[in-house]
Amino acid sequence: MQKVILIGSGNVADHLAHALYEAGHQIIQVISQNKKKSAALAQKVNANSTTDLEKIKKADFVIVAINDDAIAQVVSKIHNLPVAHTSGIVSIENAAVFYPLQTFSKGVPLDIKSVPFCVSSKDKVFETTLLNVAKSISSRVFQIEENQRKILHLAAVFASNFSNQMYVIAERLLAKSDLDFEILKPLINETVNKIQTNSPQAVQTGPAKRKDLETINTHLDLLDDEELKNVYQVITNQILKQK
Amino acid sequence: MQKVILIGSGNVADHLAHALYEAGHQIIQVISQNKKKSAALAQKVNANSTTDLEKIKKADFVIVAINDDAIAQVVSKIHNLPVAHTSGIVSIENAAVFYPLQTFSKGVPLDIKSVPFCVSSKDKVFETTLLNVAKSISSRVFQIEENQRKILHLAAVFASNFSNQMYVIAERLLAKSDLDFEILKPLINETVNKIQTNSPQAVQTGPAKRKDLETINTHLDLLDDEELKNVYQVITNQILKQK
Repeated sequence: MQKVILIGSGNVADHLAHALYEAGHQIIQVISQNKKKSAALAQKVNANSTTDLEKIKKADFVIVAINDDAIAQVVSKIHNLPVAHTSGIVSIENAAVFYPLQTFSKGVPLDIKSVPFCVSSKDKVFETTLLNVAKSISSRVFQIEENQRKILHLAAVFASNFSNQMYVIAERLLAKSDLDFEILKPLINETVNKIQTNSPQAVQTGPAKRKDLETINTHLDLLDDEELKNVYQVITNQILKQK
Repeated sequence: MQKVILIGSGNVADHLAHALYEAGHQIIQVISQNKKKSAALAQKVNANSTTDLEKIKKADFVIVAINDDAIAQVVSKIHNLPVAHTSGIVSIENAAVFYPLQTFSKGVPLDIKSVPFCVSSKDKVFETTLLNVAKSISSRVFQIEENQRKILHLAAVFASNFSNQMYVIAERLLAKSDLDFEILKPLINETVNKIQTNSPQAVQTGPAKRKDLETINTHLDLLDDEELKNVYQVITNQILKQK
């Protein structure tokens, strides 16, 4: 059991606080500039709350789960306590990494046990502590190197944000023709189902994969938005060039 | 119960033949240039098989489930029988459409009941027949117009082939850094899980959504492949411009 101070009150802080609390760790304090949110979160996990970083209490370590661009400044103000942040991309001297590789949304419940946690620290004693804490809430815990973490974060943007953007585009195209996005869900689900047991490259299908230039041209003609045409062309070229 | 002739012996023909047969329709004949595959498929669904289109038997109608670029020529050789093809994009005078909106892979079992079938025909009697046949194998049957079908096919390329390409890219990036694609699967699954009950636009996350230019630049620096940089930039710009 560890005594933890959590800085932040957004989605990641919220999910982490609950997971740590339920795993039997003690949340000593929730610190966030958002007084209402930090107080609400603190109450749920039986913690003290404050908006003032100067009033930080004693604990085993601190987890900073806030926006990437604010992490460095907050970390610089914490003294005499080991600190880890939850960012996939930020690198800070003297801060360890406790990065949950998942997309967290407000109010969308999540099975934290299946979330991969990527841990690294120069201080190997602290790293062992963080690895054990991660293992107490998740079954997928990895010690990864600095450069690996950044590539992982980049790959996650492709696999999650960019694939989701393809759904955004599909939804918009359908809406213009009075079609419901619902009709595409079985296809989307099957596409993801296939890659559970196959390499994505091995199960690629479609006109670009078949080098069916006639269909590709028909599609380009259907797209009246220049930006969408460009997205279509760039990804199609990528697939066309594959062996 | 309908008497059906199936032209083709690929993935779509294979899945359709089994679904129709199991729903109690009679597969009269399987016609395909691939003698071995058509004979094997015909045997499984208790049908006659031939490689010669001239030897076509009598039936209620014909389903042409072959490559897009060969459909017109095959349809032109069928006389005195109603014909439907399974393409999402091809338009042929005198041929109805019986388009299953799904990605079919050899040997990957599929719940055909959940596959959306898009049906259209100028001959409204034949259209009713096709709608009923579709309803006998699937719970999601839609009568759609010509122009809607093409947009649907285009949207499906974004939602399935292009989202899969994002996984292909992610897998390659990870492989270069000795990381296993496995680590991204919980994230990918959660991304798709979210859109089951939310609009993709409403649940978009990531650096472009947050307008986090610092992270975007870090990512671009990590990409040493000019083509991948371009893919990243084009999709990121698309997300940045969204409200």
